[in-house]
Amino acid sequence: MRWNKISDAVIRRLPLYLRVLDDLAEDGDTELISSQELGVKAGVGPALVRKDLAWFGEFGKQGVGYEVSFLRDELRKILNLDQELAVALVGVGSLGGALTRYHLKRFAEDPSFSLNLVALFDTDPKKVGTTIEGIPIFALDQLEEQVQALGIKLAMITVPADQAQKVADLLIKAGIQGILNFAPVKLQAPTGVQVASADLSLELQRLAYYIPATNEN
Amino acid sequence: MRWNKISDAVIRRLPLYLRVLDDLAEDGDTELISSQELGVKAGVGPALVRKDLAWFGEFGKQGVGYEVSFLRDELRKILNLDQELAVALVGVGSLGGALTRYHLKRFAEDPSFSLNLVALFDTDPKKVGTTIEGIPIFALDQLEEQVQALGIKLAMITVPADQAQKVADLLIKAGIQGILNFAPVKLQAPTGVQVASADLSLELQRLAYYIPATNEN
Repeated sequence: MRWNKISDAVIRRLPLYLRVLDDLAEDGDTELISSQELGVKAGVGPALVRKDLAWFGEFGKQGVGYEVSFLRDELRKILNLDQELAVALVGVGSLGGALTRYHLKRFAEDPSFSLNLVALFDTDPKKVGTTIEGIPIFALDQLEEQVQALGIKLAMITVPADQAQKVADLLIKAGIQGILNFAPVKLQAPTGVQVASADLSLELQRLAYYIPATNEN
Repeated sequence: MRWNKISDAVIRRLPLYLRVLDDLAEDGDTELISSQELGVKAGVGPALVRKDLAWFGEFGKQGVGYEVSFLRDELRKILNLDQELAVALVGVGSLGGALTRYHLKRFAEDPSFSLNLVALFDTDPKKVGTTIEGIPIFALDQLEEQVQALGIKLAMITVPADQAQKVADLLIKAGIQGILNFAPVKLQAPTGVQVASADLSLELQRLAYYIPATNEN
């Protein structure tokens, strides 16, 4: 079941709600949560919480709230996270290597995280054939084959900017429809392929806007 | 000069426009750009480009377009990037170390990037007093002192989730008003402090939503 016309702004908040519910489920004390409380913890207004969730069904009861474990399971299903998803990373430089370790640690600490990094890719013949924390590094021309073999669904790109579009094209050709791009470049992708940008420079540049004017003495 | 009531959705797109203009200025061939072309390159609709820029003044001429170097300079001023800004990073683990190298490389390749990483902070006594690529690592209790001494304006947080709020509180107490948070946790901050999340897990979870249903045979 897919809900085709739901705005990405809504989808973007679902993982925030899921994180709150995951934390509550881990603590184990809370069986019910109000939209008010869920909103505060997720950093979203309570009316918006109710509106977002209503797109997908009737999950709560007026005056009672949402059942934590039920809503958590439903959100997992909606986000395709009720199954383990195989993820690849292309570009094993210092950022790629660090993200690999970070991701594996996250996954080890929280098996319900569901996103499992299974393969790395690089063009450097010295890296190909080695592993990082047990994850194999393949050559870029093995991409299509490994996407098939390992059932890879999502990919992260951590190659230099001038290589990123080429890598994205290869990923898309191999059937990947969700890409998280760390390279500081806007990627072109056909309809049906979702590209998210994790361009850290852009975020910092945005933050710079909010720096208060310095008093000039 | 600040424009207080402009939506963050607008501010978020300005660095995208700036990047296009930076690339064009680097090539040096293009003196004028239409909103159409700027939009395509930035991945934003042309009407939205015109609307976004109109918030800050009259930068283009109907039927002629925008002068690349002029608009670039104006966007730098709006984003406070017409000066070099000192940035700190707290948490020199594998992700923090990789981001430090990544950021320095970016800054070295493009001096107009303006965001200069000048100080690292950690609690590990073995790391304090050492450097990464020449950037000193200070103890966390030197934060306030160094923010003053080095004129630090923005900070990145790459500490574990359970430490992130404490670090954010210290940064805010030291006068930092822009924080880019990599820890997978929602940070509380007073009005006037901008916190951007670079939570990579959330982005991947969002992308998972778009994975097409597998055919069940």
